[in-house]
Amino acid sequence: MFKTNEYFDGKVKSMAFTTPDGPATLGVMAPGEYEFGTSTVEYMTVVYGHMTVLLPGETEWEHFESFDTFMVEKDAKFRLKIEQDSAYVCLYK
Amino acid sequence: MFKTNEYFDGKVKSMAFTTPDGPATLGVMAPGEYEFGTSTVEYMTVVYGHMTVLLPGETEWEHFESFDTFMVEKDAKFRLKIEQDSAYVCLYK
Repeated sequence: MFKTNEYFDGKVKSMAFTTPDGPATLGVMAPGEYEFGTSTVEYMTVVYGHMTVLLPGETEWEHFESFDTFMVEKDAKFRLKIEQDSAYVCLYK
Repeated sequence: MFKTNEYFDGKVKSMAFTTPDGPATLGVMAPGEYEFGTSTVEYMTVVYGHMTVLLPGETEWEHFESFDTFMVEKDAKFRLKIEQDSAYVCLYK
Protein backbone atom coordinates (compact mmCIF):
# COMPACT_ATOMS: atom_id res chain seq x y z
CA MET A 1 0.00 0.00 0.00
CA PHE A 2 2.78 2.42 0.92
CA LYS A 3 5.64 1.97 -1.52
CA THR A 4 9.15 2.10 -0.07
CA ASN A 5 12.23 3.41 -1.90
CA GLU A 6 15.87 3.31 -0.89
CA TYR A 7 18.69 5.60 -1.98
CA PHE A 8 22.43 5.73 -1.26
CA ASP A 9 22.68 2.04 -0.30
CA GLY A 10 19.73 2.34 2.03
CA LYS A 11 21.09 5.32 3.95
CA VAL A 12 18.01 7.23 2.80
CA LYS A 13 14.66 5.42 2.82
CA SER A 14 11.24 6.79 2.00
CA MET A 15 7.59 5.73 1.91
CA ALA A 16 5.12 7.29 -0.53
CA PHE A 17 1.69 8.41 0.59
CA THR A 18 -1.04 10.65 -0.73
CA THR A 19 -2.33 13.99 0.48
CA PRO A 20 -5.27 16.17 -0.58
CA ASP A 21 -2.62 18.39 -2.22
CA GLY A 22 -0.83 15.66 -4.16
CA PRO A 23 1.84 13.03 -3.70
CA ALA A 24 4.15 13.03 -0.70
CA THR A 25 6.89 10.97 0.88
CA LEU A 26 7.96 10.40 4.42
CA GLY A 27 11.59 9.45 4.88
CA VAL A 28 14.59 9.07 7.09
CA MET A 29 18.26 9.80 6.39
CA ALA A 30 21.27 8.30 8.17
CA PRO A 31 24.29 10.52 8.89
CA GLY A 32 26.07 11.44 5.67
CA GLU A 33 26.09 13.90 2.80
CA TYR A 34 23.64 13.55 -0.08
CA GLU A 35 22.69 15.23 -3.33
CA PHE A 36 19.16 14.97 -4.70
CA GLY A 37 17.58 16.21 -7.90
CA THR A 38 13.99 17.43 -8.16
CA SER A 39 11.48 16.89 -10.94
CA THR A 40 8.76 18.98 -9.27
CA VAL A 41 8.80 21.77 -6.75
CA GLU A 42 9.44 20.09 -3.38
CA TYR A 43 8.46 21.28 0.07
CA MET A 44 10.60 19.48 2.62
CA THR A 45 9.65 19.64 6.30
CA VAL A 46 12.09 18.30 8.87
CA VAL A 47 10.03 16.16 11.27
CA TYR A 48 12.85 14.78 13.43
CA GLY A 49 16.47 15.81 13.89
CA HIS A 50 18.05 18.50 11.74
CA MET A 51 19.38 19.03 8.24
CA THR A 52 22.02 21.34 6.82
CA VAL A 53 21.07 22.17 3.26
CA LEU A 54 22.71 23.79 0.24
CA LEU A 55 19.81 25.00 -1.87
CA PRO A 56 20.12 25.43 -5.66
CA GLY A 57 22.14 28.50 -6.63
CA GLU A 58 23.15 29.23 -3.04
CA THR A 59 26.69 29.31 -1.69
CA GLU A 60 25.83 29.19 2.00
CA TRP A 61 24.52 26.13 3.79
CA GLU A 62 21.36 26.65 5.81
CA HIS A 63 20.39 24.83 8.97
CA PHE A 64 16.86 23.48 9.44
CA GLU A 65 15.44 22.07 12.67
CA SER A 66 12.36 19.95 13.36
CA PHE A 67 9.21 21.43 11.86
CA ASP A 68 11.15 23.86 9.63
CA THR A 69 10.18 23.70 5.95
CA PHE A 70 12.30 24.58 2.93
CA MET A 71 11.30 24.74 -0.71
CA VAL A 72 13.37 23.40 -3.60
CA GLU A 73 12.57 24.53 -7.12
CA LYS A 74 11.78 22.11 -9.97
CA ASP A 75 14.58 20.48 -12.01
CA ALA A 76 17.25 21.50 -9.55
CA LYS A 77 19.83 19.82 -7.36
CA PHE A 78 20.30 20.33 -3.67
CA ARG A 79 22.67 18.91 -1.09
CA LEU A 80 22.12 17.83 2.49
CA LYS A 81 24.44 17.15 5.41
CA ILE A 82 22.95 14.91 8.09
CA GLU A 83 24.59 14.47 11.49
CA GLN A 84 22.09 12.11 13.16
CA ASP A 85 19.20 10.03 11.83
CA SER A 86 16.76 12.70 10.66
CA ALA A 87 13.28 12.43 9.22
CA TYR A 88 11.30 14.50 6.76
CA VAL A 89 7.98 14.84 5.00
CA CYS A 90 8.24 15.95 1.36
CA LEU A 91 5.34 17.33 -0.68
CA TYR A 92 5.61 17.42 -4.49
CA LYS A 93 3.85 20.24 -6.35
CA MET B 1 19.60 -0.07 7.43
CA PHE B 2 16.15 1.24 8.33
CA LYS B 3 13.91 -1.71 9.10
CA THR B 4 10.35 -1.53 7.81
CA ASN B 5 7.32 -3.05 9.51
CA GLU B 6 3.75 -3.38 8.31
CA TYR B 7 0.57 -3.73 10.36
CA PHE B 8 -3.11 -4.15 9.50
CA ASP B 9 -2.44 -5.63 6.03
CA GLY B 10 -0.05 -2.80 5.20
CA LYS B 11 -2.46 -0.01 6.11
CA VAL B 12 0.08 1.09 8.71
CA LYS B 13 3.76 1.01 7.80
CA SER B 14 6.74 2.15 9.83
CA MET B 15 10.50 2.52 9.58
CA ALA B 16 12.74 2.24 12.64
CA PHE B 17 15.52 4.74 13.30
CA THR B 18 17.67 5.78 16.21
CA THR B 19 17.76 9.00 18.20
CA PRO B 20 20.07 10.28 20.94
CA ASP B 21 17.15 9.55 23.30
CA GLY B 22 16.51 5.97 22.18
CA PRO B 23 14.67 4.05 19.48
CA ALA B 24 12.06 5.69 17.29
CA THR B 25 9.83 4.94 14.35
CA LEU B 26 8.48 7.03 11.54
CA GLY B 27 5.26 5.79 10.00
CA VAL B 28 2.20 6.41 7.91
CA MET B 29 -1.40 5.24 8.41
CA ALA B 30 -4.07 4.90 5.74
CA PRO B 31 -7.66 5.85 6.55
CA GLY B 32 -9.16 3.40 9.03
CA GLU B 33 -9.47 2.60 12.69
CA TYR B 34 -6.67 0.88 14.58
CA GLU B 35 -5.78 -0.37 18.03
CA PHE B 36 -2.17 -0.57 19.19
CA GLY B 37 -0.58 -1.84 22.37
CA THR B 38 2.51 -0.33 23.96
CA SER B 39 5.45 -2.06 25.63
CA THR B 40 7.20 1.20 26.57
CA VAL B 41 6.00 4.73 27.12
CA GLU B 42 5.39 6.18 23.65
CA TYR B 43 5.50 9.79 22.55
CA MET B 44 3.63 10.10 19.26
CA THR B 45 3.98 13.27 17.21
CA VAL B 46 1.69 13.78 14.24
CA VAL B 47 3.91 15.00 11.38
CA TYR B 48 1.33 15.04 8.57
CA GLY B 49 -2.47 14.95 8.57
CA HIS B 50 -4.42 14.40 11.76
CA MET B 51 -5.36 11.63 14.19
CA THR B 52 -8.31 11.12 16.48
CA VAL B 53 -7.14 9.12 19.47
CA LEU B 54 -8.73 7.27 22.37
CA LEU B 55 -6.04 7.19 25.05
CA PRO B 56 -5.92 4.43 27.70
CA GLY B 57 -8.58 4.86 30.37
CA GLU B 58 -10.26 7.76 28.56
CA THR B 59 -13.82 7.83 27.28
CA GLU B 60 -13.48 10.84 24.99
CA TRP B 61 -11.63 10.82 21.69
CA GLU B 62 -9.06 13.60 21.29
CA HIS B 63 -8.05 15.24 18.03
CA PHE B 64 -4.39 15.84 17.20
CA GLU B 65 -3.09 17.91 14.30
CA SER B 66 0.33 18.11 12.66
CA PHE B 67 3.11 18.70 15.18
CA ASP B 68 0.89 17.84 18.16
CA THR B 69 2.37 15.21 20.48
CA PHE B 70 0.52 12.79 22.75
CA MET B 71 1.93 10.35 25.30
CA VAL B 72 0.75 6.77 25.78
CA GLU B 73 1.68 4.94 28.95
CA LYS B 74 3.51 1.60 28.99
CA ASP B 75 1.61 -1.72 28.64
CA ALA B 76 -1.55 0.00 27.51
CA LYS B 77 -3.83 -0.02 24.49
CA PHE B 78 -4.92 2.99 22.50
CA ARG B 79 -7.13 3.46 19.46
CA LEU B 80 -6.80 5.76 16.47
CA LYS B 81 -9.22 6.95 13.81
CA ILE B 82 -7.53 8.13 10.62
CA GLU B 83 -9.43 10.04 7.92
CA GLN B 84 -6.64 10.68 5.41
CA ASP B 85 -3.11 9.29 5.06
CA SER B 86 -1.40 10.61 8.16
CA ALA B 87 2.18 10.35 9.35
CA TYR B 88 3.81 10.21 12.75
CA VAL B 89 7.12 10.00 14.58
CA CYS B 90 7.06 7.78 17.67
CA LEU B 91 9.70 7.84 20.42
CA TYR B 92 9.94 4.88 22.83
CA LYS B 93 11.07 5.59 26.40
